[in-house]
Amino acid sequence: MAATSDSGRLEAFSDGVLAVAITLLALNLAVEGPGHGPLGHQLVDRWPVMAAYLVSFFTVGIIWVNHHALFKNLTQVDRTLLFLNLLLLFFVVVIPFATSTMASYLRSGGADAHLAAALYGVVLEGMSLSFGAIFLWSIRQGHLPRPLKEADARRAQWRFGIGSFVYLAAAALAFVSAPLALGLYGIIACYYIFEQTPGQAAEQTPGPAHPESTQTR
Amino acid sequence: MAATSDSGRLEAFSDGVLAVAITLLALNLAVEGPGHGPLGHQLVDRWPVMAAYLVSFFTVGIIWVNHHALFKNLTQVDRTLLFLNLLLLFFVVVIPFATSTMASYLRSGGADAHLAAALYGVVLEGMSLSFGAIFLWSIRQGHLPRPLKEADARRAQWRFGIGSFVYLAAAALAFVSAPLALGLYGIIACYYIFEQTPGQAAEQTPGPAHPESTQTR
Amino acid sequence: MAATSDSGRLEAFSDGVLAVAITLLALNLAVEGPGHGPLGHQLVDRWPVMAAYLVSFFTVGIIWVNHHALFKNLTQVDRTLLFLNLLLLFFVVVIPFATSTMASYLRSGGADAHLAAALYGVVLEGMSLSFGAIFLWSIRQGHLPRPLKEADARRAQWRFGIGSFVYLAAAALAFVSAPLALGLYGIIACYYIFEQTPGQAAEQTPGPAHPESTQTR
Amino acid sequence: MAATSDSGRLEAFSDGVLAVAITLLALNLAVEGPGHGPLGHQLVDRWPVMAAYLVSFFTVGIIWVNHHALFKNLTQVDRTLLFLNLLLLFFVVVIPFATSTMASYLRSGGADAHLAAALYGVVLEGMSLSFGAIFLWSIRQGHLPRPLKEADARRAQWRFGIGSFVYLAAAALAFVSAPLALGLYGIIACYYIFEQTPGQAAEQTPGPAHPESTQTR
Repeated sequence: MAATSDSGRLEAFSDGVLAVAITLLALNLAVEGPGHGPLGHQLVDRWPVMAAYLVSFFTVGIIWVNHHALFKNLTQVDRTLLFLNLLLLFFVVVIPFATSTMASYLRSGGADAHLAAALYGVVLEGMSLSFGAIFLWSIRQGHLPRPLKEADARRAQWRFGIGSFVYLAAAALAFVSAPLALGLYGIIACYYIFEQTPGQAAEQTPGPAHPESTQTR
Repeated sequence: MAATSDSGRLEAFSDGVLAVAITLLALNLAVEGPGHGPLGHQLVDRWPVMAAYLVSFFTVGIIWVNHHALFKNLTQVDRTLLFLNLLLLFFVVVIPFATSTMASYLRSGGADAHLAAALYGVVLEGMSLSFGAIFLWSIRQGHLPRPLKEADARRAQWRFGIGSFVYLAAAALAFVSAPLALGLYGIIACYYIFEQTPGQAAEQTPGPAHPESTQTR
Repeated sequence: MAATSDSGRLEAFSDGVLAVAITLLALNLAVEGPGHGPLGHQLVDRWPVMAAYLVSFFTVGIIWVNHHALFKNLTQVDRTLLFLNLLLLFFVVVIPFATSTMASYLRSGGADAHLAAALYGVVLEGMSLSFGAIFLWSIRQGHLPRPLKEADARRAQWRFGIGSFVYLAAAALAFVSAPLALGLYGIIACYYIFEQTPGQAAEQTPGPAHPESTQTR
Repeated sequence: MAATSDSGRLEAFSDGVLAVAITLLALNLAVEGPGHGPLGHQLVDRWPVMAAYLVSFFTVGIIWVNHHALFKNLTQVDRTLLFLNLLLLFFVVVIPFATSTMASYLRSGGADAHLAAALYGVVLEGMSLSFGAIFLWSIRQGHLPRPLKEADARRAQWRFGIGSFVYLAAAALAFVSAPLALGLYGIIACYYIFEQTPGQAAEQTPGPAHPESTQTR
């Protein structure tokens, strides 16, 4: 098993926070109930809530997938990594708030819609930078069982860099058009569904170690 | 142990999401408090909330039981499975919203009650199809330690297909009668309590491997 | 390790549900905020909320301690046990609702206070009976690594029986006095802090197996 | 692995409670939505909510880090420890309530602001004392694989003592100035980021046991 008991509990706590945050996202879907117009109209009028839920759900889901892929390969977790992970969770936990704020202001338009969509981008930017810091720390400090090849390391850093740049660009775009910014947040989520961390790529190439490890298991 | 460390974390995250979603279901039970008529009347008037909670609790509970039975047998989890699982959780997380919407419109009757009960069915249909996709992917890609016999595989696919058909039928029935649709959702939950996945059936037949594994444990 | 991977995931899911339920209990503590009279008065007036939180927190906490003690000793988890456990969680998840209802009606007095306090008892009675069923099923079906001695089994059954009787008595007492019933619920929680399941007693007697198991670990 | 299966489940339950509590903290950030003045003004006016969230998030995060560091070293968990841990969680679960109360009264000033900020300190004091009790019990009862050196034990006790003294001082300071008290709560959190438990210090000194344990893993 690549993960130490230490990394195990960090993962368990992070899984808990991510699971609660992703489930709280859906609380925002709630309609106002009988006496506030036909249900069908309410649901149609609330499209920004649905769209924001969709984007945020897969954003948090992909954070989990990448968190999983990264920590699976770490052999040791030091105190710095615990606090960098806490910083990541600090932003993750704010995502439901940022989502519901963006959703409720999106249709009203004007300066508030721009600000709300930009606020969402700033939260994701913070998340993205924290994740990048975790990644950099873990490859620099030799926490990986096998060091990454130089090219892989550079590609991976570039990849995390891209996310941080595009979130910043989307936050700026929010001041032009809030719905366009929401669209760009969604595109970033789609990009990360197909793009992989080096750890995940390695995992799918069955190396000679795999048959052995299934024997001992 | 059948489950790899990989599948372990997927299960931990899914358990977290399922646990939060199943617990949030009960938030909807809250009465309005003193000053809104006798408590007894409020509780009796709120029977759709209680009925919807009952059906949704056991629906999510059975999702957990089947998720548990399925992933226990997987030896490897690939990226596709991670995202199919995320799709399943996407619908699971919406169940508390769909439940409270159905419950609050059920008694008001009319077009809104029909739509709310149909919406509930559509969410469960999405959950059912995602679960079917996970199942198909896992038996096709050889993720099982021992491939299923052809007959077992066909029976299992048929079984998942049944769920998807009946949820669709219940969603259509909702436009005739919302309470009848709720009843049918409950019947589907009961059916899945007694019906088993192939993995679970195998688990209850103590094969020659079991005594050995208890010795090494 | 006494627990199979199977029991492990049942415990993880139950831990999740118990953790969410116990944390949601505290949501009810919220005061009304500025503009609703001095904070000190609000806190003093809300003593039933505090008292109900105290009793419910330790009730759910003790459910966890006993759940932990019971499942640690099970070598196998069958489908019946999965569903009995689901039934237990069904009642656990309702505890935050029952707690907040009891708390909000306790001070208003009259028939509603009696009903609310009795409702709380009925929920705990359901929890207690489900737990008893899990216990009976697990000792009858030979899920324990070493069968209990006849005297221990009888004592343990008696103990679970006591809880179920006293919760029923407290629910009846609620129709005489709601605060007295709350007091009795608290006393039951205190009783279970000191009373132990047979599994826990065994755990505290360091047998010859323990030094060996620490060597292999 | 240092942690027994017993300690594993205590950690899993505690992780769940801490994860839910830390995520619920952010619920308080919610703005009032369109129609309550410009979003920018709302966000600026709500600085106490943001500040309180920041302090509470890292306070709970550090509780997790220290909980993790402490229990990782325990070889055995007895019933007393289960209940001391439950007492710790009792206070942790109240932190979101204490946070939102402090935040909503902080700007209104006057006696209520003082009381709200002091209440927050009392909750953290209770948390701190429970944590101290867990620590004392675990080093006294020989739950550690290697007993602490006398000097380390005294230093660690002193350290926990400091936290309890300063939380008490901050609660007293709240009656002079609520914002100053909030500042002091933040300083305590910062202090614990840099200060370490003996267990963590040991963990960062790679002893001879580490290379071996990675071989057997």
